[in-house]
Formats: sequence, C-alpha cells, structure tokens
Amino acid sequence: MKRNIDRRRRLGTQFPLFLLIALLCAHTSFSQKYTKYVNPFIGSSNFGATNPGAILPEGMVSVTPFNVSKAPGNRINIDEGWCSAPYIYENKVLTGFTHVNLSGVGCPDLGSILLMPTTGELQVFHGEYGTTYSDEQAAPGYYAANLDKYNIKAEMTATVRSGLSRYTFPAGQSHILLNLGLGLTNEPGSYAKIVSDTEIEGFKMNGSFCYTSDQSVFPVYFVVRFSKPADKKGFFKKIPDMPGTRGEWYQHTGKYKVYKEYQKELAGDDLGVFFSYQTEKDEVIEVQVGVSYVSIENARANLNAEQQGFAFAQVKKEAETAWEQQLSRIEVEGGSNEDKTVFYTALYHSLIHPNIFQDVNGEYSAANQSYVGKNTSGTRYNVFSMWDTYRWYGQLMTLVYPERQLNIVRSLLDFYKESGHLPKWELASRNFDVMEGDPALPTIADTWLRGLNDFDKELAYEAMIRQATRPGAENPVRHDNDFYSKNGYVPFTKKFDNSVSQALEYYAADYSLAQLAKALGKQSDYEMLMKRVEGYKKYFDPEYGLLRPVKENGEFMENFDPLQGENFEPANGFHEGTSWNYSFYIPFDMEGLIKLHGGKKNFVSRLVRSFEDSLFDVTNEPDMGYPYYFNYIKGEEWRTQAYVRSLVKNDFNASPGGIPGNDDTGTLSTWVMWSMMGIFPTCPGEPTFTLTSPVFDKVTIHLDEKYFPKKELVIETSNNNEGNIYIDKVELGSKRLRGSFISQEELLKAGKLMFYLSDKK
Amino acid sequence: MKRNIDRRRRLGTQFPLFLLIALLCAHTSFSQKYTKYVNPFIGSSNFGATNPGAILPEGMVSVTPFNVSKAPGNRINIDEGWCSAPYIYENKVLTGFTHVNLSGVGCPDLGSILLMPTTGELQVFHGEYGTTYSDEQAAPGYYAANLDKYNIKAEMTATVRSGLSRYTFPAGQSHILLNLGLGLTNEPGSYAKIVSDTEIEGFKMNGSFCYTSDQSVFPVYFVVRFSKPADKKGFFKKIPDMPGTRGEWYQHTGKYKVYKEYQKELAGDDLGVFFSYQTEKDEVIEVQVGVSYVSIENARANLNAEQQGFAFAQVKKEAETAWEQQLSRIEVEGGSNEDKTVFYTALYHSLIHPNIFQDVNGEYSAANQSYVGKNTSGTRYNVFSMWDTYRWYGQLMTLVYPERQLNIVRSLLDFYKESGHLPKWELASRNFDVMEGDPALPTIADTWLRGLNDFDKELAYEAMIRQATRPGAENPVRHDNDFYSKNGYVPFTKKFDNSVSQALEYYAADYSLAQLAKALGKQSDYEMLMKRVEGYKKYFDPEYGLLRPVKENGEFMENFDPLQGENFEPANGFHEGTSWNYSFYIPFDMEGLIKLHGGKKNFVSRLVRSFEDSLFDVTNEPDMGYPYYFNYIKGEEWRTQAYVRSLVKNDFNASPGGIPGNDDTGTLSTWVMWSMMGIFPTCPGEPTFTLTSPVFDKVTIHLDEKYFPKKELVIETSNNNEGNIYIDKVELGSKRLRGSFISQEELLKAGKLMFYLSDKK
Repeated sequence: MKRNIDRRRRLGTQFPLFLLIALLCAHTSFSQKYTKYVNPFIGSSNFGATNPGAILPEGMVSVTPFNVSKAPGNRINIDEGWCSAPYIYENKVLTGFTHVNLSGVGCPDLGSILLMPTTGELQVFHGEYGTTYSDEQAAPGYYAANLDKYNIKAEMTATVRSGLSRYTFPAGQSHILLNLGLGLTNEPGSYAKIVSDTEIEGFKMNGSFCYTSDQSVFPVYFVVRFSKPADKKGFFKKIPDMPGTRGEWYQHTGKYKVYKEYQKELAGDDLGVFFSYQTEKDEVIEVQVGVSYVSIENARANLNAEQQGFAFAQVKKEAETAWEQQLSRIEVEGGSNEDKTVFYTALYHSLIHPNIFQDVNGEYSAANQSYVGKNTSGTRYNVFSMWDTYRWYGQLMTLVYPERQLNIVRSLLDFYKESGHLPKWELASRNFDVMEGDPALPTIADTWLRGLNDFDKELAYEAMIRQATRPGAENPVRHDNDFYSKNGYVPFTKKFDNSVSQALEYYAADYSLAQLAKALGKQSDYEMLMKRVEGYKKYFDPEYGLLRPVKENGEFMENFDPLQGENFEPANGFHEGTSWNYSFYIPFDMEGLIKLHGGKKNFVSRLVRSFEDSLFDVTNEPDMGYPYYFNYIKGEEWRTQAYVRSLVKNDFNASPGGIPGNDDTGTLSTWVMWSMMGIFPTCPGEPTFTLTSPVFDKVTIHLDEKYFPKKELVIETSNNNEGNIYIDKVELGSKRLRGSFISQEELLKAGKLMFYLSDKK
Repeated sequence: MKRNIDRRRRLGTQFPLFLLIALLCAHTSFSQKYTKYVNPFIGSSNFGATNPGAILPEGMVSVTPFNVSKAPGNRINIDEGWCSAPYIYENKVLTGFTHVNLSGVGCPDLGSILLMPTTGELQVFHGEYGTTYSDEQAAPGYYAANLDKYNIKAEMTATVRSGLSRYTFPAGQSHILLNLGLGLTNEPGSYAKIVSDTEIEGFKMNGSFCYTSDQSVFPVYFVVRFSKPADKKGFFKKIPDMPGTRGEWYQHTGKYKVYKEYQKELAGDDLGVFFSYQTEKDEVIEVQVGVSYVSIENARANLNAEQQGFAFAQVKKEAETAWEQQLSRIEVEGGSNEDKTVFYTALYHSLIHPNIFQDVNGEYSAANQSYVGKNTSGTRYNVFSMWDTYRWYGQLMTLVYPERQLNIVRSLLDFYKESGHLPKWELASRNFDVMEGDPALPTIADTWLRGLNDFDKELAYEAMIRQATRPGAENPVRHDNDFYSKNGYVPFTKKFDNSVSQALEYYAADYSLAQLAKALGKQSDYEMLMKRVEGYKKYFDPEYGLLRPVKENGEFMENFDPLQGENFEPANGFHEGTSWNYSFYIPFDMEGLIKLHGGKKNFVSRLVRSFEDSLFDVTNEPDMGYPYYFNYIKGEEWRTQAYVRSLVKNDFNASPGGIPGNDDTGTLSTWVMWSMMGIFPTCPGEPTFTLTSPVFDKVTIHLDEKYFPKKELVIETSNNNEGNIYIDKVELGSKRLRGSFISQEELLKAGKLMFYLSDKK
C-alpha cells in the first residue's frame, strides 16, 4: 500500500559514505552478531515510514524520536502535508519521543504519548520548545540523541509493553513534559491524572486511521513513572478559541494555559503534564512509560512486570539480546556488509508488526463492545496491514517464525469470534476500510496450505467461507459482494472507483480459499469460488493487452487511458496506480493470462515493456511479483534473475532512503529478503516458491522442528560473484531441480538448495 | 457585587398581572403554607442572575433550564455578551438542563453537566437542537416546561446532591443527550465513560471564575442513570480545527463527530453522550444525576444514598417538604400577597448559597493539594461571596439559622486549616481574587460577637489576626498589606485601581476584628487595628465632602472626578461605582465621618443628595446601608423609613425582574427581608440592629433555643397601613425603646418588638 502522493520521488540528496559508516558502526559490540547489521535509520527517509525508535521484537511500545511537527527545517510535517511517520530522517527539529508508533505505514495514526525533556523557562507549546538534535545513534532496542537547545542527552530503550528513557541534564532548571496533544493520530482527546510526585496515568485517544473509518477509535492507556520526585508539577492545555466577551476576558483563549496549582486530573483535546526539577550537572533522570490498550491498571501491571526499578543499562542489554535471538533464525554468509545490513534490517522491520497487543495478564481490547478479551494460549497481535502482507510477508513468517504466524492466524480468528468478521486493515482490534479485497482469507489459507494449521480449523474455514459469501449489505469487508459473487467481477460505477483493483483482490482471496476447499474435499465451495476467479478474463481488453474497467452491463468502460494513475493521480478502476501496474496480477492463472495475451511472446514483450518503460512500480505490492513472472515461461527465467537483482541493487540500500517506499509493515522488507535469498512465493494459496539467483553465498534458516521435518534449510550458492547473476543449475538436496518452481514441502524435506551461478543468461 | 455592564437597566417590559398570578398560583396545594409564596422566577431577569431550577435548601445540585446559548431569541447569551446566569427569563431558546449552578452571581461559572431530551433525527450541536419552550412552571424543588420543537414535557426535581428529570416523550425516535461541552464555565475539558445501557459517569472541569484566578479550577464528578436501557448509545464531540492536509482529509474537522460504535470512554474539550430510544406515546423516561466534587465513586454514593429507584413524585414531594420546613422559621402576617412573595422568595434565595459541598460520606474537595477532606461534624459549605454577604446576610443567618451560620464559619476555618489562609471569594474550595478587602474577617467576627462561637475559637482568632498582619508578599488575600498596615490607607498607584474601595473594605474587616479583640481583652491587637481604621480620614476631601484617592506621598490624586464610574464605567480608586457610592461607607465611625463633613447638617444634606440626584446604587452593597444612616442623626430617622420603604416598593417586586441587580448569593434578598421586617444590622462587628418601619403586621422568627434565650422573636406593627410608613414609637418587650438602635442581645432577651406607625414624619 502506498499513500504518499510523491513517495516515489527518491531522496534528493545522497547520504555521504562516512555517515553511512558512522551509522553502521554505532554501538556494535562483540556480542552483536546480528544486531550489528541492523540500521534502524533505513526506511526513515524516502517515504519508507519506518523509524529509528527503540523497540523489541513484536513490541507494543516503541520510544521514537518525533520530528514531524511544523517547524523550520521540517519540510515534511503533520500540519502541512501528508505525513505518516513520527520521524523523517531529513527533518531537523525534534519535539519529543512518542511511545506508541506504527512502522512502515502510509496513513498517520498513533505516534502519541510523547515525552520531552527541556531546560530553562518552562515552555509547553511544541512550536516553542522544539530543538535541533545531534549525535544520533540507533540500534535494535536503543536510540540516543543530544538535544542541542537544551544540552540534554536523551537515550531510550524499551521492553515489550513499556519504554524507558534516560535523560542526562545540565545544571539548572529542567523539565520533563508528557505531551498528549501532539501526535500523528488525527483523533483528539486525552485524560491525565497526576498520581504522585513520581507518577502520571491516563489515556490518549487514537484512531480514525486513514480518515475513512472515522468510527474506529480507541484509547491507549499509560502509566508514566519518574526516577526522581518532581520539585514542581502541573498540567498544560490549549484553551479553545472562545467567542465574544469570553474571548475578550479570558487571557488564555486560543493559547496554552499552564496549570501550576491544580494537580489532580484533567481532560481535553490538547493537554499535557509537566514535571520540573532543579538538576545538577550531568544529573540523570529516568522515565518509564507502561502502556496498555485495556486499562490504566493493566498499563501499570505491564510496567511493573517488565521493569523492576530503573535500570536503563539492563533493559537496553535485554532488548539487544531479544533481537539477537530473533535475528539469529536466519544466518547469511557472503555478500557485502551493506547486503547484510539491508537483509538484517529488513528482517528487523518484518518483526515489528504485527505486534503483541495483549497485556501481561493476557487481557486485550477486543473487536467488539465487550472490550476486554483474555488470551489463555497464544498471543494476540494487532496491526494487520493484510492487503500488503498476504502476498509474501506471511509466507516468510510461516517458514521462519511458524509460531508467530500461527498466532497471527489465531488473532484473526479471535477477531472473528469477537466481531463476526475477519478484518481488512486491523489496528487495535478495530477494522479499517482501507485498500481493497479481503486479505485475511489468503493470509489464513496460505498458512494452512503450507502445513501450519494448529488453530481452530473449523472456525477458520467457517469464517472464510462466511466472509466470501455473506451478502454485501451485512458484510463489513465485502460491501459489493452481491454483484461480484453473481457476475464474477466488480463493475465500474463511478469516476475513480477502484473496481478492477478490488476485483483482483477478490480473485486472489477466493482463489486461495478455493485451493483450501479443494484440499479439504469441499468440492462445491471450490467450484463456486473458482468460477468467480475466472471472471478476471472479463477485464482483459485484447486491444490494449491490459485489464480495463467493465461496466455493470458487461461492456468496457469508455475513454480508457492505460496510463491514467501515474504519479499517484487517481485512475478509473485502479487504486494508486495505472492499468499497467495491475494488468499482470493474475498469479493464480498465469497460463490463462498468457493465453489471453495471445501467447508467451506477447506476454513477455508486454511484461518487459512494463519494466523498460517505467510502467512498473517497485513500491506497489500488486506488481511486485512481476519480476518473478518470467519464471512461468521456459527460457525467460534469466529476465527474472536480472530484474530482481537490479531492483535489489538499485532500490534497496543501507541508507535512510534504502527502502523505495512505504515499508508496509515489513512487506517491502520481506520482498527484498526473499529476493536476496533466491526463493519467492509467487501466489498466495499455492505452497510453492519460485527461484532467482541468491545474493548470499549461504543462507541458513533455523527451522522450528515442531512444525517442519528438518532443523534447518540451507540455501547455498556456488560461483557467486559480481557478474554471476544468472542461474546455471539448481540442486535440491542431491538432485538436480528442473524448472523454477518448488513446493515448500519438497524444499523442507530436502533441507538444502544449491544454486550454481554464472554470467550467462 | 455587580459585574453586568448595564444591569441597572430595569427590564423594559412590565410583566402582565395575569402572568404574575399564574406564576404565583402554579403548583400550590393545601400543604404549601410557605412555598406557595416562593416564585423562583423572581431574579431571573434584570440581571438578578437567579434561576428557576429545581433545588433543595443548601443543595449541591440544581436542575436548571439553560437558555443562554447563542440563538435567535436569546439576546443575552454566553457567546455574545457577559452572561453569568444559566437562565434569563426573556430568552426564548433552551438547550438543556444543567446540574451544577450558581444563583445570583455576577461572573459565569458552573452551569454545566447538561441533559437535553430531543426527538427525531439525532442532533448533537446545541446550535441545532435548541428549542423554544412553553408552559413553564417553577416551585421550590420543581421546574417544568414543554419543549415545543420536540413535544416533550420536561420536569425536574432534586435532592441535595442529585437531580432527577422526568421526560414525557411522544411516539418515535427519542434521544437524551448529556452535553458536557456546553455551559457557563469558561474552563473547558471533560471526561465521560459509558458504564452500561443505563449509566454514564465522568467529570467536567469548571473554574477560572471571573477570569482573574485562572489557576483555580476543579472537576465536578457525575453519575447519570437512566430508568430505561438505551436502544443505541454513543459519544459526540467537537473535533478541533485541523491544519493543512489533515484538515482537508478529515471530514469532521471543526465539526461535531458522532461516535456510534465506540462506547467506552472519551475525553475532550467539547463532548457528550447520547442515549437513544424508540419511545411510545407519552412514554416517561427518568434520568438521575448524582454529583460530587471528590470522585465518581462519591457521586455514585451520593446518588444511591439520596434516591432509591426512580420515584419522581416522591422526590418532588420531599423537596417541597424540605423547603416548607426551612421557610417556616419566619412567619409573616399582613402585607399583600406580593409582599409575602417578595419576602419568602428572598428567604428562598438566601438558602441556596453557601451550599452543601461535602458528600454523604463526609468527604469534600479540600482547599489544598491533598484534595480530599473529611468532615466528621458539621457541614462543609462552598460558594462564599463574602464581599457581598458579610454586611447583613450573615447576620440574618446568625439570627434565624444559627446552625447554618456556625457551619459557614466552621467551613471557613477548615479552609484555613487546609490552605493557611481564609478565602475571599470561595468556590469549590478554591480561592478567587474577586472584589476587594478581606471579607472572611467580618463574617467570622460578627458571628462571634453576636454570641455564636461554637467553633475552634483559638484557631479562628489566629486565622484572622494572621491574615490581617501577614506581609503582602505571602498573603493570598491582602497582597498590598504592607503599605496599608504601615500607613493606614491603600495608595492610588495606577489608573482605574480600586484603592479607596480596597481600603474601605480593610477598615470594615479590621474594625470588626478590633471589636472582637477588645471583647477578648486583646488590647494591643485592638489598638493596632483601630489605628489602621482611623486611616479612612485621609481620604476625606473637604472640598468635595467625599472620599478621594490618595497617592503614596499622602497627597490627593489629581484630576478627581466624583462622578467618574457612573454607568459601570471604570473609575480611579473605586470599584464598580463613583466616589459618591463609597463616600459614606464608614459605618464603623459614623460620628467621625459626620465630624469630617462639618456636622450633621452637611452630612444629611450630602446623604440626601446621593438619593435625590441618583448618586445612590441600590445594587452595589457598600452603599446599600446608606438609607439606614439617617438613624444616626436624631430627628432624621424618618428619612430612613421613607427611603427604605421607597426602595422596597420600587426596586423589589414579585416579577422576574423583581430583584434590582445581581442577588449576590442572597445579599439583595436579605437586604429586602430585613427592610420588610423593620430591623437592619448596620455595621459588621457591632452586634446591633437599627430600625425602620416594618412592612408586615407581624413577623415571628422561630429561634433556635440551643443558642438563644427565647423560642421566638416577634416583631409586631400597630397602625400598619398604606400611608403609615413612619415610626411613631417602639416598644421592646413592655418598655418604650429610645433611639433607633438595639443590641441583638437585648432584642432576643425581650423577644418582642412592637412598632407603632403613623403617617407623620
């Protein structure tokens, strides 16, 4: 998914080499076998929308520098343009550190519960207290910067459900602000209570994600605890504009008011709390923030369970260890340092969302009005950007982190139990009507078909079939299901609708479910679904060799412009792209598509044109499988190897702009990982991989023996050097592999894939 | 105190007689011996600032129609002019019923926690849902009106700490809104939680009263309970204006958003909750609102203790009984029905503030940062408008409701224990720097000197002396105490300061404390204080025969204009008035003042001029004793009798405009009561009364034998008829009384005062 109007524009300035080296070298130590290859700044520019905040694998909390307030030096900011990340690498002015954040997402939300240390006279308006910063450092579970204006060193680390900040102050008057009014979320409203000289509790509303689902809002609860009792404390709040006489009389109208005497509890749209101190030179104050989506009590319980006392060094060390453990599931050898950095940072980014949503006691905010669910087994996750992730992200999790993928599916099924439907874009147990299709179905079906099914299978099948067949009027995801299920396509009905994009997603979903139905012997479901999937052919216009919107009467939409939709302009029938970006997205029937094109030659020539004429978008998921589609045609596989290598090399790197667009919660990251490892899952619902030439000499994936027959999967490469980007031959186990596809089952049974590379196409 | 710029303008239209009769006759029954003479609409026009809401004696809660939103037909409203009352009789459009309200106060505050029943399509913005109303009825503890637009009959009654509303709906879609964004208070911010289908809880911030004390804010907690479970429910909230792209994308920016799905808890500046119902014709839904200034738990406990189930008729009956009981302390005979209505409505108004501030469990919000105090004996009150009440209001309470007056003093002393100082203008345990002087001192001293001293006397004296002598820098009430205590006057230092007004109040306060010191044998305190009081003479300018501001060097301020300050224009040295309004306010040394004037003749002629040339203001407390000052001069007493009768007759009546200005929490009401009874306390700190001709044939005050020697005090009048407004002679008990003054002790010992009236001056 992409939403930034100009995110395809690459970062204008090149990052100087010394800076890259400095970033790479930051905070590495002997024990950092994998984390030393993680550069959390990657993706923080070029609309990658990731951030360098301190976070644990699957962490509910990240402590993230927030530098997207309107300020001179912040060209991209929340007040003036579309801004979906709490941190933009090029921005200059920082206004705090937020504790709940989204990583690699195209719509603004969360980015709230903000702490900010300052010195001198108390300033509470971010437009006044913001500061430039220097000496940034970031590593998994750690971020640090000096705040120039205040001469404060700010460091942060995290546990799963809490943040920990360490501020080193100069001598004099110092303050720590908890700012609840500033954030990425567009949902206003917060509540704060000063519990004691060392504690604050409250909640901040978030939600209305992507603006479309304005009803989907949720509170995030917090407990903030300080290592030093405040000398002075109080609230601040922006007073709304008051009309007439009241505005004339009230000095604070439209301004921030500081509450120095009142210290109980406050509610409002834009408020915060200040704790003030007289600090000595280099005095350290630590601040913990526990978070929960259930209640203040749970936020406190989370904090108490995960942090005993204030122990910054220990928490930081534990965070690093947790990352080392997770990243060690895949070992790569060979490749450059930058290759490894791209790879491990991608793996790092893929382990941020979906993230743990339940509290230490198992409670979580449920997807219905009972509000509190409780997990007795497994882990409830949230942040499911499934339109993005169903294509190849889930497949990586299935292979490398099967327990995680099972919990993803279990979370979806619990969501279904609570709400009666599977979500589309899920955040905080709310469903958001963002992007197209019904992506929970291929997410679940693919996992199941790849052999992971340790969940309530009956419920899972019921949920999927119900969603696929439920009438539109009562279907929270497939509003237009009636026409589609009857006619096999989504008709073009109004200017700039996304009808073709929508239908393609339905086909992908229904195809994956059909494969599952077939596997389960549910023949009539299979046939019903496959009949729908056939509908894609209605869109194919032989005149253009492209998909073209079709009206309700079955005729093509008039005035078709296959290039409409370039540069993020809207298009008739297609979402965030042109017909070219979508017209090959038929991975479930490549044979049929090739036939429609009039044979392999036409198909190849058109697919090649999409790359050569810049009609391909490396950041829009539906076409990101295209480089692999040459593998469907014998003799053309070299094009896959060439295009994939080229994209990996040119569109990904170890700089802040090193992800070509929204990471989409790890979707671009996992694309580059597969592409560097040499295998790629082309079609959701088909438990296979297709091949390309690996970047690394050796990749060892440590498998979970609970689910898979072998301890590891090894992908080795022979003759791997600069010019040898083409596959000469491949061996599976000890046997020569014919063709470019292999089932996951065979691959894991063999446990080893050996590529022989050459410079010959 | 007065703040309305043109409140001296009398209501232009006369109220037709039939309307008055209708108002008087509303809801009277056989048992309504006294309440039938209470017309709660009196004071609701002409800037009286009282309201017809349902309330109990000393009630924490009143349920009051709120018709001061900006709307066509609401000439006086909170958005366009100064508006300190939730209800203005002439206004036309009602937008709900508020549950915490101030009565007869010149600055806006409270007027919040608003319920509004509507029908049809859900509207949540008061600018849209407002309605005209008809068939208003009001009686002590009861208010009713028909809401024209919705065909709803709305009735309300109250207990001490809770409200009860009964809405009779038509058939169809109906709603009950809890609107926390709309109110008189200028302090924004509220929190609401939907507890169940029948209950809401939360708090609303209030405070910043009179704008001056912006730090004095406080939450009011509530629990709202419905007799019928909601069919649908949710929140609504005004979304602040969002800048740039966010504003373009978010449909709700700057508008009210209705939250139909999210039903947990919400915080913000302008929000509310809706409960929706499908109602049948004439279906009744009752709504209870429990209130506390301590916590939600206490609000619930208050509600549970004071209302068992939904029992509108019973609660209404109990409210009436409570009022009958309180009003029966004074029985009047003779006089017209309108005289009795003016009198009993005044008594009613005098029992609204100060009001009970503690919860059923004795807890209350304390005047410091510990927040929760607990009363084990007595009653904690709040709403002390003491600049107004110390002059003659407290004296009426002392005589008629001594237990109430003792609790007033005890509340002040508890405030002192909690905060280290006595308050000036107290609301919700917050001190507000409103008006002049140090009015807690004469409040306590006068009570004590009149023989009521069942409180911590040592603490009381300590508190008063401390406040009188504490240096200005650390004195929260007497900021300018240093110069004053050294030089005996407050110097004119800048344009439009209130220096003379301020000094006059200090003199009154210090004089009363001096009298107490003398009575306690504390001679040095007495002398120190009396020396200060002498300072008033510095202000007397023989050239004008008036008080004139004096500079720090002891010289008169230049360019003195004795008429500056008319029509609520600002004046140099005087607050809300001219030099004429203040120049005779030396009740503590009338003899000295007369001497300064060059003798009785000059004094009388100037005092007469103040009445004859409209230099007297019947609504500004410092001069409201002037009509009685003729009693200080033998042979001139008839002028007192004439002026008092004239003011009673011309400035007070039984219409909505029947109080000439802000009632000042019962101060104007008790002035007219004394004046109708024939006795008046002229100088705080002197436990005496001066006399005028009573309006009634007989007044019986039932005394509390715990504090006073007799069961009752009877004031009888002989020869009382239209023309006989002059006192011929007076008998105290069986003895002829010489002069126009009598000590309270003598009066109560005798138990009877007999006036013989005639038409002779």
